[in-house]
Amino acid sequence: MDRLQQVTIVGTGLLGTSLGLALKTRNLAERVVGVGRQVATVERARDLGAVDDVATDVAAAAAPSDLVVLATPLGQFPAVFAALASCDRPDLTVTDVGSTKADVCRLARTHLKRPQRFIGSHPMAGSERQGPDAGSADLFNGKPCILTPEADADPAALTLVRDLWLTLGMRVLVMAAPHHDAQVARISHLPHLLAVLLVDLAARHGSLDVASTGFADTTRIASGDPHIWADVFTSNRDAVLTAIDAFTADLAQARHLIAQGDPAQLLHWLTQSKTTRDNWQSGTNTPED
Amino acid sequence: MDRLQQVTIVGTGLLGTSLGLALKTRNLAERVVGVGRQVATVERARDLGAVDDVATDVAAAAAPSDLVVLATPLGQFPAVFAALASCDRPDLTVTDVGSTKADVCRLARTHLKRPQRFIGSHPMAGSERQGPDAGSADLFNGKPCILTPEADADPAALTLVRDLWLTLGMRVLVMAAPHHDAQVARISHLPHLLAVLLVDLAARHGSLDVASTGFADTTRIASGDPHIWADVFTSNRDAVLTAIDAFTADLAQARHLIAQGDPAQLLHWLTQSKTTRDNWQSGTNTPED
Repeated sequence: MDRLQQVTIVGTGLLGTSLGLALKTRNLAERVVGVGRQVATVERARDLGAVDDVATDVAAAAAPSDLVVLATPLGQFPAVFAALASCDRPDLTVTDVGSTKADVCRLARTHLKRPQRFIGSHPMAGSERQGPDAGSADLFNGKPCILTPEADADPAALTLVRDLWLTLGMRVLVMAAPHHDAQVARISHLPHLLAVLLVDLAARHGSLDVASTGFADTTRIASGDPHIWADVFTSNRDAVLTAIDAFTADLAQARHLIAQGDPAQLLHWLTQSKTTRDNWQSGTNTPED
Repeated sequence: MDRLQQVTIVGTGLLGTSLGLALKTRNLAERVVGVGRQVATVERARDLGAVDDVATDVAAAAAPSDLVVLATPLGQFPAVFAALASCDRPDLTVTDVGSTKADVCRLARTHLKRPQRFIGSHPMAGSERQGPDAGSADLFNGKPCILTPEADADPAALTLVRDLWLTLGMRVLVMAAPHHDAQVARISHLPHLLAVLLVDLAARHGSLDVASTGFADTTRIASGDPHIWADVFTSNRDAVLTAIDAFTADLAQARHLIAQGDPAQLLHWLTQSKTTRDNWQSGTNTPED
């Protein structure tokens, strides 16, 4: 991708800081500006080398930017988009790193002067760790990134955002925002919910004493930032409810199978699932250990 | 613990081989005999240094042993206990590494001449990897091991089995078999079931393409040996059904909370769970990464 003059990153937590580090390390931008409500967090990102300058005013920082990236928790998106409403630089591209997309695209359309230059992104490179110090220039490498351009998206903006993530080593997929939201409800939001419920159930019955590695793996995501996840469940409510309903039906069916107590049937089912997962695992770059 | 003359390990998969390696490495037994239906698997364990000798007849190998450890899949336990029925060596201690305990204690009582010398063990040191080559002398180190002695258990047998696991670095807990089964249903069998169902749901909707690290962690256990897990769900059926019912009720409650769409309530709930999990994690030796 062409080197950018200025990139403004709003929110310098794990993802924002990692993006800044990735841009600086690869010399992809002349200047990276970090914006945040908590100045100490942005200053920390600057000390880590993720941003060159610290700012507090979104609109002022966006004005001279080629690219603005929203990297705050989803709950702050309405305020950030509202602040961007005054920007009228014609070649400003806006993207984000939020975990839900229909809601975010709706905000962009409501607030931005040129919503065609907003390209929703979801780089799927989370971690249960938080804050600038958890950031890494390689966080995005080898992970999937979903783009959800609207039908009228500006081709130049789409190219810029796509090239950015490709340059950072991501596997870019393009899909409609509602489809994205349904997919991540199944592979991210529902698993998170189940992990939280498993922790609750085990704690309620004093079972954590005997929990070990498998439980630690399965529930690791339940240690994620509660603010981020409260926002996700709010923002993607309908898709999450649909995923819960599908899963509840599957669980009832599995209950029936176990109640029947036929080891051969259980073996057949478990073997199929293991094969599915092993094939998926061997086809991804996700490390197994 | 006192050095043993002979330990016989029936089944030399991941756990049996790891136990043999742990015994040999620490020089805890003069002779370790491996028994198995598949001679090649036991020979592989011997080549890895986990057992000194290979045998195929359980009763013959058990006759001169101080300790017999059942380490086959649970589905083979009835046949192994039946083979041990002829043993009448008074000071033979028998234990196992099975994931369920009430069912196993019932088999011991049915078959063994001296069921008082059977002490059910559940070293919680699984892995989704299988077979002798996945074995490790340190597999048990730092993990919990649950013992489920019956009320009339022989104190010398209990001491031997307890000391064995303590010597291998395990954290030993003693509880009644039905309590064990209810606990592991919550922290192991139910999580396994949910992981399998998550893989199925994601695969059915083509969502695996966008799955990443979090999904890999949450579903890792679904890559476990289907034979082992079909046996577990059969052997621990009632406790698993009870855990499923409790979880289904919790899931319905969570659905209600999400449907209400109150971020403050969601945040409160998610924060509590995160705190619970973080406290548990920091109190265990389970590595987080």
